[in-house]
Amino acid sequence: MSGVAIDRAACEALDAADPLRGLRALYELAPGLVYLDGNSLGPLPRTTVACVERGMREAWGRELIRSWNTAGWIDLPQRIGDAIAPLIGAGPGEVVAADSTSVNLFKVLSAAIAMRPKRSTILSENGNFPTDLYIAQGLIAQTGGTRTLRLVERTGLLDAIDADTAVVMLTQVDYRSGSRLDLAEVTARAHALGALVVWDLAHSAGAFEVALNEARADFAVGCGYKYLNGGPGAPAFVFVARRHQHDFVQPLSGWMGHAAPFDFDPAYRPADGISRALVGTPPILSMLALECGVAAMRAAAPLGGMAAIRRKSLALSDLFIELVERRCAGFGLRLVTPRAHAARASQASFAIADGATGYAVIQALIARAVIGDFRAPDVLRFGFAPSYLRFVDIWDAVERLREVLVTRAWDRPEFRTRLAVT
Amino acid sequence: MSGVAIDRAACEALDAADPLRGLRALYELAPGLVYLDGNSLGPLPRTTVACVERGMREAWGRELIRSWNTAGWIDLPQRIGDAIAPLIGAGPGEVVAADSTSVNLFKVLSAAIAMRPKRSTILSENGNFPTDLYIAQGLIAQTGGTRTLRLVERTGLLDAIDADTAVVMLTQVDYRSGSRLDLAEVTARAHALGALVVWDLAHSAGAFEVALNEARADFAVGCGYKYLNGGPGAPAFVFVARRHQHDFVQPLSGWMGHAAPFDFDPAYRPADGISRALVGTPPILSMLALECGVAAMRAAAPLGGMAAIRRKSLALSDLFIELVERRCAGFGLRLVTPRAHAARASQASFAIADGATGYAVIQALIARAVIGDFRAPDVLRFGFAPSYLRFVDIWDAVERLREVLVTRAWDRPEFRTRLAVT
Repeated sequence: MSGVAIDRAACEALDAADPLRGLRALYELAPGLVYLDGNSLGPLPRTTVACVERGMREAWGRELIRSWNTAGWIDLPQRIGDAIAPLIGAGPGEVVAADSTSVNLFKVLSAAIAMRPKRSTILSENGNFPTDLYIAQGLIAQTGGTRTLRLVERTGLLDAIDADTAVVMLTQVDYRSGSRLDLAEVTARAHALGALVVWDLAHSAGAFEVALNEARADFAVGCGYKYLNGGPGAPAFVFVARRHQHDFVQPLSGWMGHAAPFDFDPAYRPADGISRALVGTPPILSMLALECGVAAMRAAAPLGGMAAIRRKSLALSDLFIELVERRCAGFGLRLVTPRAHAARASQASFAIADGATGYAVIQALIARAVIGDFRAPDVLRFGFAPSYLRFVDIWDAVERLREVLVTRAWDRPEFRTRLAVT
Repeated sequence: MSGVAIDRAACEALDAADPLRGLRALYELAPGLVYLDGNSLGPLPRTTVACVERGMREAWGRELIRSWNTAGWIDLPQRIGDAIAPLIGAGPGEVVAADSTSVNLFKVLSAAIAMRPKRSTILSENGNFPTDLYIAQGLIAQTGGTRTLRLVERTGLLDAIDADTAVVMLTQVDYRSGSRLDLAEVTARAHALGALVVWDLAHSAGAFEVALNEARADFAVGCGYKYLNGGPGAPAFVFVARRHQHDFVQPLSGWMGHAAPFDFDPAYRPADGISRALVGTPPILSMLALECGVAAMRAAAPLGGMAAIRRKSLALSDLFIELVERRCAGFGLRLVTPRAHAARASQASFAIADGATGYAVIQALIARAVIGDFRAPDVLRFGFAPSYLRFVDIWDAVERLREVLVTRAWDRPEFRTRLAVT
């Protein structure tokens, strides 16, 4: 829409024509709130409270231990995994919901390096989400320190894969800039050189189309509490391509991953298929909430599914970028998200000259009911979840940002106070 | 009370005199239900639904991402850990709630073997809970297979500890028989021979007094969903003695265990203290339920605390054993739980000649609202949680068991059908 003058009424018209407009009603959103932090914690789906409450009062409270059978608790990891699968281009029996993203990464990274015993490098990028790097560091130290974690710049990734690369471990979307790697291209390059790839889909799953099997992906993990709206700290998911499942040996060999968990056999014997990625008893209340979040996301399916989500995501972020650059010009904001659609995820990030000011700007914006977040050292980050965001929300967010900048509303001590969690 | 005739009225009198009788009101329990499976899944505390609902509607639904600060979500692992600590004889800053028991066991077992690099044996017992053995097997395979998991009979444990023992890994309470190891004795013996000890307190925490620091215990893990009433699959806990925390290096080095998780430093630097046992983002809804469960358990503190819980537990189980042996004689039930109080946890288990019959007996009993469980191959298992069980419940449970046996009520096809989860 570049070059065409846009105003709030034009945004309202875009909303009226939006095929996904009905999805917003599936979420609890306070009137007036513009929530651009769904990439950090997705909002509460309307079905979740009743579902978790039923899980507590009826299943736990009345049926007690019987609910493992009668309420199907025992199958939740596989059931939720199968519901997530079509969102990421995986098949049934290739995904389970379990543990945290970090723990799942440990499983697949352990399995992957064991499948390439003669190669010594885990390749990743400097800007990977830190916890992924920490997990690789922990695994390397534990397994004797003979492997190396090699970190390169994102731009040099393809060239850095070589015959010593055991595993390429990447988060598809850079959490700061929102730049997006071409999953198929990196996977193909790694495979051509004999390496395996572990993808972290934290900012991908539910945000845009991911085609794991089309790209012949090996392993992936991802987050339940961002675009899948599974609730704070929702269990994560793990994908193991069917062709690797037989050779998938992970060290967190707990009873839920056993072939016959209720035989109480003293020797571990992994279950066939993806279930061997499970460890201990899953947190059922949080699993029930995750199931509701995934179901809300799946409601887009008859409306065009992830392709429609992606189209709207790009339209929302294009609009946001254009409006910020036009309406907030002169305040030193610089887009760090790629402009090219193919290289962009579902967020827009702007660097600001002074990080301390940037932090305060985000706090002042939050005080005006526009929730984005700040990522050190200098990034204002805004995420776009097409299921519940409207074009008018984008308009309102930018207007409030403009107001914060123009009036220097950010220049107050309370907006500079760093919170424990940022 | 052996030798004295007891009837239901006598049980009612015992209840009237019970100093803990008020605690039952803290739990949701269906009228007529006798719940003897709290060692598998504790019941729903009355505060939990409102607390989790508030966590969903207000903290997640309205405050969204801000609740990590405003609702104190970020401190839940430490806060719940500090609430569990006095129940197990630990100090503040020595326990966190996190992940599952199996995952926590992997952390402490990894750290412990790394602290004894020249010793090659992990010693455990044949009858240890299988998932603990699986985790040890997974860890050994992952770290190169140079270590051995040595399994001995419980009776030969103390003699089996030797100069090659790196770690003794034990579950204090045998999940089948309910026999209880002397935590202080085993710990002292292991220390005398230079070994470390990892205790699994799954059936100990909240069931009776545990004195970790008095015994100079090294590491422990335990379960949130049994006697702590934290809900299905509630997060587990992990204890690291303060003197070991500085040397505690565990491979699941995720961002929640980092010294400065919001600095997004690419190099892992463990937090001081117990927080380094954390990995990824915790499942908040399940954590909130766990917090309520632990608070309900802590309500016993002004009534005599875990010492009072223990006294009542022994009285309940003595009564149950006596009544079963008297009222259900002639049906081939044989007590497998030690009679000596010091050697017994908070359950009573009876072996039965024919396991298939035993399974059906438990199902028939469940149909009569007495919930116990069956543990293969032949054990009828009954757990006693003094917070909500009455002496009349014991009487009623045994009378219904008697009825099932006398009338052969168990001899129906529907009671023989094995369920997925037993």
